[in-house]
Amino acid sequence: MRRLLIIGIGAGDPDHMTVQAIDALNSADVVLVPEKEGKDGLAALRHDICRRFMTRTDWRTVAYKVPKRAAPDLSYRQVVDDWHEAIGDIWGRLLSEDVKDGETAAYLVWGDPSIYDSTLRIVERLAAKGDVAFDYEVIPGITSIQALAARHRIALNTIGGPIHVTTGRRLGQEGPGTADSIVVMLDGELAFTTVDADEFDIYWGANLGTESEVAIAGRLSEKSSEITEARAKARDKAGWVMDTYLLRRKDNGAKE
Amino acid sequence: MRRLLIIGIGAGDPDHMTVQAIDALNSADVVLVPEKEGKDGLAALRHDICRRFMTRTDWRTVAYKVPKRAAPDLSYRQVVDDWHEAIGDIWGRLLSEDVKDGETAAYLVWGDPSIYDSTLRIVERLAAKGDVAFDYEVIPGITSIQALAARHRIALNTIGGPIHVTTGRRLGQEGPGTADSIVVMLDGELAFTTVDADEFDIYWGANLGTESEVAIAGRLSEKSSEITEARAKARDKAGWVMDTYLLRRKDNGAKE
Repeated sequence: MRRLLIIGIGAGDPDHMTVQAIDALNSADVVLVPEKEGKDGLAALRHDICRRFMTRTDWRTVAYKVPKRAAPDLSYRQVVDDWHEAIGDIWGRLLSEDVKDGETAAYLVWGDPSIYDSTLRIVERLAAKGDVAFDYEVIPGITSIQALAARHRIALNTIGGPIHVTTGRRLGQEGPGTADSIVVMLDGELAFTTVDADEFDIYWGANLGTESEVAIAGRLSEKSSEITEARAKARDKAGWVMDTYLLRRKDNGAKE
Repeated sequence: MRRLLIIGIGAGDPDHMTVQAIDALNSADVVLVPEKEGKDGLAALRHDICRRFMTRTDWRTVAYKVPKRAAPDLSYRQVVDDWHEAIGDIWGRLLSEDVKDGETAAYLVWGDPSIYDSTLRIVERLAAKGDVAFDYEVIPGITSIQALAARHRIALNTIGGPIHVTTGRRLGQEGPGTADSIVVMLDGELAFTTVDADEFDIYWGANLGTESEVAIAGRLSEKSSEITEARAKARDKAGWVMDTYLLRRKDNGAKE
């Protein structure tokens, strides 16, 4: 039996590593290392984390090329499904050929494996196939949502109120609805520019926990273009940008 | 100038502590210790964490009695406001009398300070009053939501889909609406029994990360009474119970 550990490593700052994640890393004989074409902000972080927190000396890495995701000619879901299948096939080969029976492999996930990350879907599918016998375990990690809230020293919810977590894509398509507190991730399209700027305050951050971290908060009507510029600058500086933000409806108190 | 660190310590397992949280704890001269009447699950965890992770020897604790929250004769919001004010007054006294100028105080928060926790509202209010000058910083921590997802090895979102995070109180009042993925916290009323059990699967956990942890997943229609029993048992065992769950609408794939 092989063992696979899916380890959340936090939002970018190696100090986000939990004791549990450090122990899990050190129980791994093999660390799976995805290689993507072009810049990959996570590659450097993975490397830093292994170098800093691995105390055992008898571990090895196994690298693999991450297949490209097809352009969405079919439905978005179909494209994602096919992509998961392709990565699962690679993982199946790695687990049977590069990880010995009785060994433990680790895969490091930015943030937390449970939020907008495909790893668990890929692994579940692979486990269901049954070609290679393995057990797997998940170690939670600090998300960029939490890093954002800590940076701005805010609660994500209003008193007793709900939090709506969504993607930039969805916010752009569906609008904010009636939600008071909207957390937006994976926004490649500046979806905050599509909502009524007079209705919301924004708490925004990009590349949180890294050297290129930038954070801005204020009235959306006043900060929108400043954020757009800061986002472009962060991308220039780091070679990549990942931003997360909270839209907070103004005067939400009036409703309660 | 005094410094106050609001430190997220994770969902119950001391191994959830991050490197950042351990460092923050060790920068504290004083740890604020709230004392509540009756059983307090967090009291033991706070104690364990200080004993295990504090490496400095010259630190001290300052204990205070947490005032009781009034019964909600007024509006819920007014009661919460008054309670925050009362706690803020106590903190103000502690900071000026028990923490010296130039010293750092720490306050440990279960889970993450940004999610359904009043600490940041209390501190913000206290800072705005200006009676005692202090700066404060927030250290994120693993939430019970993340511990739940890791325990069940699931993603909280469907592919590209939103996550609605709410309280048991709200779910009971407002129902699930059209959301596919609903995370429920602070549910003292078994609000999962109020939704259409044929519509949802449930991934449930109580006292996650502690010795009395229990987790159950399956069709809501089949698991509802099992969960109700397990919840009561967890409370008997630990003296307290905190549960968190994900309701996942069935056949959500059909919509995409």
